[in-house]
Amino acid sequence: MGKKVGKQTFSFDKPPVIINTATVAGPFEGQGPLKNYYDHIYNDNRAEQESFEKAEREMMSNACITVLNKAKITPREIDIFIAGDLLNQIITSGFTALGLEVPFFGVYAACSTSALSLIIASIILESGCAEIALTATSSHNLSAERQFRYPTEYGVHRKPYSQWTVTGAGAALVSTKGKGPKITCATIGKVEDLGCKDPMNMGAAMAPAAVSTMLQHFADTGRAPEYYDLIVTGDLGKVGYELALELASSQGGFDLSKNYYDCGLVIYDPEKQDVHAGASGCAASALVVYGYLFKKLLDGKYNKILLAATGALHSPTSNQQGDNIPTIAHAVSLEMV
Amino acid sequence: MGKKVGKQTFSFDKPPVIINTATVAGPFEGQGPLKNYYDHIYNDNRAEQESFEKAEREMMSNACITVLNKAKITPREIDIFIAGDLLNQIITSGFTALGLEVPFFGVYAACSTSALSLIIASIILESGCAEIALTATSSHNLSAERQFRYPTEYGVHRKPYSQWTVTGAGAALVSTKGKGPKITCATIGKVEDLGCKDPMNMGAAMAPAAVSTMLQHFADTGRAPEYYDLIVTGDLGKVGYELALELASSQGGFDLSKNYYDCGLVIYDPEKQDVHAGASGCAASALVVYGYLFKKLLDGKYNKILLAATGALHSPTSNQQGDNIPTIAHAVSLEMV
Repeated sequence: MGKKVGKQTFSFDKPPVIINTATVAGPFEGQGPLKNYYDHIYNDNRAEQESFEKAEREMMSNACITVLNKAKITPREIDIFIAGDLLNQIITSGFTALGLEVPFFGVYAACSTSALSLIIASIILESGCAEIALTATSSHNLSAERQFRYPTEYGVHRKPYSQWTVTGAGAALVSTKGKGPKITCATIGKVEDLGCKDPMNMGAAMAPAAVSTMLQHFADTGRAPEYYDLIVTGDLGKVGYELALELASSQGGFDLSKNYYDCGLVIYDPEKQDVHAGASGCAASALVVYGYLFKKLLDGKYNKILLAATGALHSPTSNQQGDNIPTIAHAVSLEMV
Repeated sequence: MGKKVGKQTFSFDKPPVIINTATVAGPFEGQGPLKNYYDHIYNDNRAEQESFEKAEREMMSNACITVLNKAKITPREIDIFIAGDLLNQIITSGFTALGLEVPFFGVYAACSTSALSLIIASIILESGCAEIALTATSSHNLSAERQFRYPTEYGVHRKPYSQWTVTGAGAALVSTKGKGPKITCATIGKVEDLGCKDPMNMGAAMAPAAVSTMLQHFADTGRAPEYYDLIVTGDLGKVGYELALELASSQGGFDLSKNYYDCGLVIYDPEKQDVHAGASGCAASALVVYGYLFKKLLDGKYNKILLAATGALHSPTSNQQGDNIPTIAHAVSLEMV
């Protein structure tokens, strides 16, 4: 049985195991520093599909099929598929679920989906209702830009603090048994709003949510930041990362500078790939955590990682109607125990 | 501990209890046959807000606050808030969560959200991680029409098989203890696609998903349709209801005509309120189940109800790109035991 610890943290008695992961990346991401950690890199953003939206669907489906093949598991053995993405009505996830023909829970947590889907998978396994769950998330630069901001054909100038939506997808298999990092506990986010209205500046909007969830995690579990070999946020980018460092210090008295980085800072090479403030999108944390960090946990470089994935919950409509950008962060503790 | 029964059904060892519900309805819904079962009826579709989207948000927030007040529970006592709606990026749910200041899981299941949120709440309670969960969903005719089809100002002629998106919201409190109908088991839907492409004809698109989940529920649990005093689908409307009857007979050999109806058929008065094929939207099943049927379970008219809520997982983009409309249905068994 799981239990609630403190105000927002669920602790798992029989921690579910991430037994395998898979990641696929777009061509631009495939030139970045983590390129050797992705299972597949596409040659073009269309992935041989008729539209960017269908390309994103191909990517999520590919990540799912790849992780199943790596683990030698068929879709029929999956008890539940939990997925979400950025597109309206999460069509990437819905159509991927159609292809997999498995029971499906659709979730929406914007770019914090990697963590939320792992959390819901963990709860289902802990409840006894399922033994193996498949989670997935994705984003696509060109489908996201035209939905949330402007079609890239418009050639709109990007601001220095804007981030680059990652093209790619990640999938993870979570099981009651097997080897791999365990999800020992999870801290569920509350929606935060500190008054940010600029949809180009996601990092500033999301940093307060990231810090709120991290501080609550430390308070609920009694762990200090030093408990973790590494703390990663999802996609705050340069602006949000610096704000998060400041807020963790001013609000919690914690110096995170030693063992904390943001997934949005490591996907592109800042010397050769100018994306301004870094990466964003559901695939940012998926590529880094499911791609790179999963392998670094297995090979012993890290033993304890806290992932605090961040999401902005606005829509173009809410933005155009003058609303602030509400944000959320969900955290999962990944431990080799 | 819960357990998996058959292929798609989760059975709960300590069935969670729906201890209270609340529903709020728009002015047109407030003239319908179930008007005496709603907690609040708005005088206008704007609900004194600046936009239809903000009106929908007011409605979901009101439903949540009302159910908390009825149960004499404060938001701080809620372990988790689980909500979803039809608007892009489920902004209704996200902004409602912002106001409640509680841990939040966003879900997307289109009009099957009433059932999916109850299922996820049940799993969390069964896992031991939480003791009390708040679920909510909503839809608004005027925000949905302009997002999914055309702004109503265009005066587009509706086809005879089209349904009327319900304006309203519903919320439910699910607890490990207390009195009320218990969620004894749940059947998780798979995404179905039988080739429907017409976004005006949701009933025909969703009927196969409803029947697939119902037949799987009967197969997994060994229950016949007669086990239930009442079986209700979410929002198939007249066309989908008749198709579901046919499919249940041809695919499963079941005659559902005696104890089955669709929530979309009972919200409006067919004599005085011509909405063509009936009601649709997340609020359809929420108003009927959380409003009317919850009270009929408490007063003994029904003891066992199967809710199979149905959702269409398309977006205008997927539709415009030539995709079929994928659909899903999630079922929950509500029993006075």
